[in-house]
Amino acid sequence: MTQQTLIAIGGAEDHTADRTILKQFVHLAGGDQARIVVITTASEIPDHRWQAYHDVFTALEVGELTHLDHRDRVSALDPTQLTAIDQATGIFITGGDQVQLVSRIGGTPIDHALHRAYQRGAIVAGTSAGAACLSQTMIAFGESGNTPIQGMMQLSAGLNFISTVIFDQHFRQRERLGRLITAVAFHPGHLGIGLDEDTALVIRDHQAEVIGTGRVTLVDGLRMESTIHQAVLGAPIETHGLEISEYSAGSSLTLTHHPN
Amino acid sequence: MTQQTLIAIGGAEDHTADRTILKQFVHLAGGDQARIVVITTASEIPDHRWQAYHDVFTALEVGELTHLDHRDRVSALDPTQLTAIDQATGIFITGGDQVQLVSRIGGTPIDHALHRAYQRGAIVAGTSAGAACLSQTMIAFGESGNTPIQGMMQLSAGLNFISTVIFDQHFRQRERLGRLITAVAFHPGHLGIGLDEDTALVIRDHQAEVIGTGRVTLVDGLRMESTIHQAVLGAPIETHGLEISEYSAGSSLTLTHHPN
Repeated sequence: MTQQTLIAIGGAEDHTADRTILKQFVHLAGGDQARIVVITTASEIPDHRWQAYHDVFTALEVGELTHLDHRDRVSALDPTQLTAIDQATGIFITGGDQVQLVSRIGGTPIDHALHRAYQRGAIVAGTSAGAACLSQTMIAFGESGNTPIQGMMQLSAGLNFISTVIFDQHFRQRERLGRLITAVAFHPGHLGIGLDEDTALVIRDHQAEVIGTGRVTLVDGLRMESTIHQAVLGAPIETHGLEISEYSAGSSLTLTHHPN
Repeated sequence: MTQQTLIAIGGAEDHTADRTILKQFVHLAGGDQARIVVITTASEIPDHRWQAYHDVFTALEVGELTHLDHRDRVSALDPTQLTAIDQATGIFITGGDQVQLVSRIGGTPIDHALHRAYQRGAIVAGTSAGAACLSQTMIAFGESGNTPIQGMMQLSAGLNFISTVIFDQHFRQRERLGRLITAVAFHPGHLGIGLDEDTALVIRDHQAEVIGTGRVTLVDGLRMESTIHQAVLGAPIETHGLEISEYSAGSSLTLTHHPN
């Protein structure tokens, strides 16, 4: 059976020193045999993003590099872009705005091709907005702060490479615990995963390993009672029984409440 | 192969005259052999709701009726409620508040039991909030109006009996086109489905038939460009290329952009 591998990166991964996360992505995608597609659709500065990843992946001596970008949905309905994805051994989704990304490619042939690639074993990696979009439900946008507040963030549908988890990125750097707890409170069957910068989870079938220099925070609401259904917009949400766990590089963890 | 059947009802289905929708549910669940579980967890007046469905299902001569309700997550983690669900031929989820429902049972043994029941062929029906929660992504709450406006509604994760659609209920009665367009704009791979009151879709594998006295509105954003990623909170969202279709009783429709 083909193994699917997802790499969710909390943004700002190192490009110049150890490059631990990008090296691991390139290694898993086949090293000098890797055929990497870089998708910059989330970004407002796509050429700049492409140049940055072009440089680091070239320095890491990948086999082939292709840049795909979409400024509207028409371009993502164009079938001529599909060959690169269908031949890729690794997909890298850059940062930017996850709503821009999903609203442009969600449900298009590009989206379907990415899922085909993932199913046949291509490594799918995303950083920052590119990590947010990997799950079934994602945080679309929101505010900082450690207190969960009704309306401080909005959820939407992600690209759904993984179910029943919600990623948040730049987690400690942007103080995003409050919004991740809020997200989990809506459906506590989903596990909240806070990813610090330069930190990633390498995920295979809801089993994950932490790599990079920061921490991964799991927000588990399975036994949490909350006032999410009562709190008016702008009001704090009370929670009881939330479980929070923190992990750093080398940790192995299970991303479900219940074994599947 | 077992057939899964979902019935999404737009709320306020007739209980006293033709009872077309509830009759169809009872018929599909086995008529006088049906074992129906009524879940009132979404409601603030669970005993009142239970009484209403008890009366109508008794009048329709179902075999067995069981009432399940959850005022907190602890009660949904209680395994003693599972037998009724595991033996049910039909599950009926009442109206109320879909966030109350999902925040209480999402990810619990009750949730898993409902999915087991659905997989083995029990008919899963929901009305109003009970319909909203059936999809993978749901509208949590929002405002009325026909113009899509950023922040007019919030999405969250549903119970996920069906993927890539988003239901909205009381659709024409509460003027909800704007919020459904907004929902679809976030991920146009999801098909928006507006359900009028006393109107339902009987869904098998993304094929659906309309029953009841109102209309079903499909909001298809596959070829829609929008400003969802740019619009600030409170600002209208521009859309171009949205396709809207309307159906009434007797219509058969496909709930996907692409055949699966």
